[in-house]
Amino acid sequence: MDVKQEAIEKRLELKGFLQTGTKYELKDAHDLTVAYTPGVAEPCLHIKEDEDKSFDLTCRSNMVAVVSDGTRVLGLGDIGAAAAIPVMEGKSLLFKRFGNVDCIPLVIDTKDPDVLINTVKLVQKNFAGINLEDISSPKCYEIENRLKKELEIPVFHDDQHGTAIACLAGVKAALRFVKKDLSNVKIVVNGAGAAGANIARLLYLAGARNITLMVSSGVLNKDYKRLDSLQAELIKTLGQETKTGNLAEIAKGADVLLGVSAAGAFTKEILESLADDAIVFAMANPAPEVMYEEAKAAGVRVMGTGRSDAPNQINNVNVFPGIFRGAIDVQAREINDEMKLAAAEALAALVTDEELAEDYVVANAFDKRVPLAVAKAVAETAIKTGVARKTEVPY
Amino acid sequence: MDVKQEAIEKRLELKGFLQTGTKYELKDAHDLTVAYTPGVAEPCLHIKEDEDKSFDLTCRSNMVAVVSDGTRVLGLGDIGAAAAIPVMEGKSLLFKRFGNVDCIPLVIDTKDPDVLINTVKLVQKNFAGINLEDISSPKCYEIENRLKKELEIPVFHDDQHGTAIACLAGVKAALRFVKKDLSNVKIVVNGAGAAGANIARLLYLAGARNITLMVSSGVLNKDYKRLDSLQAELIKTLGQETKTGNLAEIAKGADVLLGVSAAGAFTKEILESLADDAIVFAMANPAPEVMYEEAKAAGVRVMGTGRSDAPNQINNVNVFPGIFRGAIDVQAREINDEMKLAAAEALAALVTDEELAEDYVVANAFDKRVPLAVAKAVAETAIKTGVARKTEVPY
Repeated sequence: MDVKQEAIEKRLELKGFLQTGTKYELKDAHDLTVAYTPGVAEPCLHIKEDEDKSFDLTCRSNMVAVVSDGTRVLGLGDIGAAAAIPVMEGKSLLFKRFGNVDCIPLVIDTKDPDVLINTVKLVQKNFAGINLEDISSPKCYEIENRLKKELEIPVFHDDQHGTAIACLAGVKAALRFVKKDLSNVKIVVNGAGAAGANIARLLYLAGARNITLMVSSGVLNKDYKRLDSLQAELIKTLGQETKTGNLAEIAKGADVLLGVSAAGAFTKEILESLADDAIVFAMANPAPEVMYEEAKAAGVRVMGTGRSDAPNQINNVNVFPGIFRGAIDVQAREINDEMKLAAAEALAALVTDEELAEDYVVANAFDKRVPLAVAKAVAETAIKTGVARKTEVPY
Repeated sequence: MDVKQEAIEKRLELKGFLQTGTKYELKDAHDLTVAYTPGVAEPCLHIKEDEDKSFDLTCRSNMVAVVSDGTRVLGLGDIGAAAAIPVMEGKSLLFKRFGNVDCIPLVIDTKDPDVLINTVKLVQKNFAGINLEDISSPKCYEIENRLKKELEIPVFHDDQHGTAIACLAGVKAALRFVKKDLSNVKIVVNGAGAAGANIARLLYLAGARNITLMVSSGVLNKDYKRLDSLQAELIKTLGQETKTGNLAEIAKGADVLLGVSAAGAFTKEILESLADDAIVFAMANPAPEVMYEEAKAAGVRVMGTGRSDAPNQINNVNVFPGIFRGAIDVQAREINDEMKLAAAEALAALVTDEELAEDYVVANAFDKRVPLAVAKAVAETAIKTGVARKTEVPY
């Protein structure tokens, strides 16, 4: 059975994959008095006195909503709220499996950013955090930025930051392997959508200073026809206006070439023109900019993709479960840049100097140390940067 | 440890009682391709073609939101959205335990009925049904009525209908025991709030024709100062304008006396003035209008309360799990009056003629036959009345 068929048949058989469960079993009439009337009045009164107690006394403690308007679902485009549910449900499964975070799909049936923002504000008290998913750019920036300002719980648009953090972690570990330094390597990022732009932004925040952000017409500059706010900011930060050229010209001699563009974008010529010990992450999904074998044949030293069937999978599943686990465990009010950088650093550090190899710069998604290492770094940094309600990390 | 203390300590220990779970286990990389990319694209495309497929292919199939604005929580009044979460969470546990319905709390942080209605509409596609809870009257009527009209999934305000259905079931079984007929017994309902008014309404729909609805000042009539739309309708239906008197006067000779009022409302004198073989359900919570022992001492034949520590508990937990189980299993678009009446009939029929006794006119909440019998009746009636997407009951 192929994956498409299995994806349908399993869901029909099980009627979807996600369900609820109980941490407190209702065995007899006494248990009902604790879980429901009259006992339930007591936690209600505690929370009425101090709303933050809802994080200790209810399922809100560990509950995250995976929010989408269905306007950019996978590579399928704007398919609407209902059709987006399977992705939000699958994501909820990953959250539970890898981070023990309780998640539910919350598709919102609107294309209007203001309506979406307002709806999330109206239901925020059910949740410890909000994971935004599959919302088209540029409105995803406005939505995330406004929700970050206006909510009292962490908001994280995984399409922007998840891949960026996983990518930064991979770059850091790979540079350690080839003994180069992030602050002076030449980095080219091909693709300036939500993922690409945030990869460039996070690399800069991590200390890289020679980054060029490319679009299909060449270096991203202020002539780009649908320039969004993040791109405009990056043109300044990265000094893009002084650069010109197409990908082949700009990539010449690059130490790190990152793709969040489209299959075929990284030709043999481009790859052969890179610096010695080049690092290439071809993250277009499902078909990468270049396949693993071709890149290696063209002399690339460390090659990664988004695929699970090739080495060095740059995978946001290494990131978001631990990010939310850590943020929730200290009751963080937000997920700030420092927490993202700490997550990448922790993830990179998981691969020890002894373990590092061309084909092993990224920990495996099923490696149990991953979510815990990320969570610990995120939780500690939340406390350090003053965005946590709790003052101690519980692990 | 008393219940209050246990209710807090257990919640602190477990960080709330509700969690999510997975029906499809993610053991390896292959499972990820089925639950997430690339397999997940397939159900998305199926649902894009036909939105109703979301009821077969996703967790929406079995997911109900327990919605509240926190304006009338238990006997605590308007305590706000966050403080209402423990009740919605407890209710979700009951739904899962007794009906195997996946439920999540969804408190909405507004007091404005229009905003609440609009928010539920925006998120309805995540759910197979909406259970309204602890919303103050009279706005609960407008909210339920508008949502019933405007949503494509069932809406049920349990505070209105749950107790009414459980009460009707109890009355039917009790009348069978004392060999009286619903169509000609004299019934008095004391209390005309959401529960009382709906008890009177449902009794009328079930065939009772001598019902009087009382408020604290006497017979409910059009002089009542905060008359709501349901009360106004009932004054006409029940012919209230031709009746006068206080409870003691009106209850004289009644066959059935039902209380959803306050502790102490049913005095010895009132109880002694009832007809032979009188049936009294004193459902005020947690302290009933009269305690079981006092009522029996005053000659009441069949006595019920809302309490689990006395015989004949009139308990909506016998109702809502089966109501939603049945409605969901045939993908009903609404829960109509016929379905409510069928639920009451099925519940009453569960206690056989051989089993019927003064202290056993209501099946026990932990009796496993209860939710299934209710679900079957509800599902069959949904199909019969043309509100189901499915054409067959799966049991």
